[in-house]
Amino acid sequence: MNPHITVREVGLRDGLQSIQTILSTEQKKTWINAAYAAGQREIEVGSFVPARLLPQLADTAEVVAHAKTLPGLEVSVLVPNLKGAERALEVGAHSMLLPLSASAAHSAANVRKTPEEMLKTLAEIRALRDASGSSCVIEVGLSTAFGCTIQGDVPEDEVVRLLIAALDAGAERVGLADTVGYADPAQVKRLFSRAFDALGTRRDLLSCGHFHDTRGLALANVMAALEVGVTKFDASLAGIGGCPHAPGASGNVSTEDVVYLLDRMGYSTGIDLSALLTLRKQIAAWLPGEQLGGSIWRAGIPRSVSGART
Amino acid sequence: MNPHITVREVGLRDGLQSIQTILSTEQKKTWINAAYAAGQREIEVGSFVPARLLPQLADTAEVVAHAKTLPGLEVSVLVPNLKGAERALEVGAHSMLLPLSASAAHSAANVRKTPEEMLKTLAEIRALRDASGSSCVIEVGLSTAFGCTIQGDVPEDEVVRLLIAALDAGAERVGLADTVGYADPAQVKRLFSRAFDALGTRRDLLSCGHFHDTRGLALANVMAALEVGVTKFDASLAGIGGCPHAPGASGNVSTEDVVYLLDRMGYSTGIDLSALLTLRKQIAAWLPGEQLGGSIWRAGIPRSVSGART
Repeated sequence: MNPHITVREVGLRDGLQSIQTILSTEQKKTWINAAYAAGQREIEVGSFVPARLLPQLADTAEVVAHAKTLPGLEVSVLVPNLKGAERALEVGAHSMLLPLSASAAHSAANVRKTPEEMLKTLAEIRALRDASGSSCVIEVGLSTAFGCTIQGDVPEDEVVRLLIAALDAGAERVGLADTVGYADPAQVKRLFSRAFDALGTRRDLLSCGHFHDTRGLALANVMAALEVGVTKFDASLAGIGGCPHAPGASGNVSTEDVVYLLDRMGYSTGIDLSALLTLRKQIAAWLPGEQLGGSIWRAGIPRSVSGART
Repeated sequence: MNPHITVREVGLRDGLQSIQTILSTEQKKTWINAAYAAGQREIEVGSFVPARLLPQLADTAEVVAHAKTLPGLEVSVLVPNLKGAERALEVGAHSMLLPLSASAAHSAANVRKTPEEMLKTLAEIRALRDASGSSCVIEVGLSTAFGCTIQGDVPEDEVVRLLIAALDAGAERVGLADTVGYADPAQVKRLFSRAFDALGTRRDLLSCGHFHDTRGLALANVMAALEVGVTKFDASLAGIGGCPHAPGASGNVSTEDVVYLLDRMGYSTGIDLSALLTLRKQIAAWLPGEQLGGSIWRAGIPRSVSGART
């Protein structure tokens, strides 16, 4: 039996932060409502970074408040630091994701901190959360885990070391992210397998694969991760996201393509692909001129004697 | 150790036959020379169908003659019938590929014959080849093996039956083709594994996987096929090909993406990816307004401490 696979929507955060167009709060609410109606039960709705840096996400508090009205939806936000974590706790997000770069060079460029400093921040966030009495789950996304545009290769030993260090410092879930689209399927299998082994009894805490389609391998990487036991994937509707270092390059793996892949292989996702494709059309209309990704929307769901397999 | 994997170029046939632009014979020769210089050693250079049906490929005889001047290159052509096979033998192609639809509905639409009638044609072609004294290899590509836009699902039993029937009727090599982009990785593994098992001592004669990227799964399917022992893939530079039933949909899996995937996973292909990307640029310039595919050309080969991994 194929297990249930969770597809977490990150388009409202990782997607929208990387494009020019700023969606209105109402549009974001409409997106969240429709994604929820289509069956999505985990959505990263924004991030708590200074609005001058990411005006696209300045309304995150209001978006969280709306998303929390939908029963059974896990509402998550990205937080880059302690201040962001305070905001996440204030608004009552169900989970918060702290990015931790496996590449020291990327860490310096992205958050102006070393990985060790980020681990200290993580411990402070954990203490804050514990003191607050909140049940907000603390997740660490290990970015550039498969390579880095600045430093190139990232040693697998270092990735595994940081995963363990993150759990030791207070993270309750961890994930591996191919931030720049360098991963290949063999590497995905090898690194996730090594990480599962190294985590031992804590292996279930490594829950998520986050892949970008920058070089076209995202779906092959999803499939590779599935084969070694990964059960949750981040994805962005219409593949929005892009990459500042590669003009025209695609961004996050597209939600609808991941759901199609999983559907077609017989995994259950709880998500209605047709509804997702309808939502994609709506969002594409909101983002004129933006580079969109994904494939299944073009040719549509295959004809099958047994009916559309969604 | 990862085995050597062959990437056969089919862009000059499957690609060019599906687009509007007609490349000149000189352009085709330049393409073949550059693909050869980049390391490709199997190229399907055209097909012997009536020129009024496919004016794009009307110069196939001249293109074959040129390609045959390149030492060690296997020059193949597609032949839809006995007359095409006669031409292939006349011009001295090294191999000829006869398409055989696993879907009866597709067979009727594509060649106006039943699969059984095509098997009879195959036997006639084999007799002709044997009588001629030629060493031209006869290959059968089992099209719509993973599903059909007209009839929907194609029974796996029927696919396996036709593979065996094709070998019994005189084919010396067979391949499975996802002509319409319906395949998913689980299906690819299942069907190739079933076919290898059913062929028994003749399993090495099932050599090739032919995938279209119509729904974005082509690279995931290549990877799935690799995992069950497939060692040759058809691919089209720049992913040209399209699909007449899906405007804007991508065509064959792109050669450069397949080579990138294989390179990155440590397989040897003998092909220089940088040279292929240079050629892609040339061909893109020859095809203004045509829908091209592929991903790696956008963002480029990843930075690696150990240097570009081509």
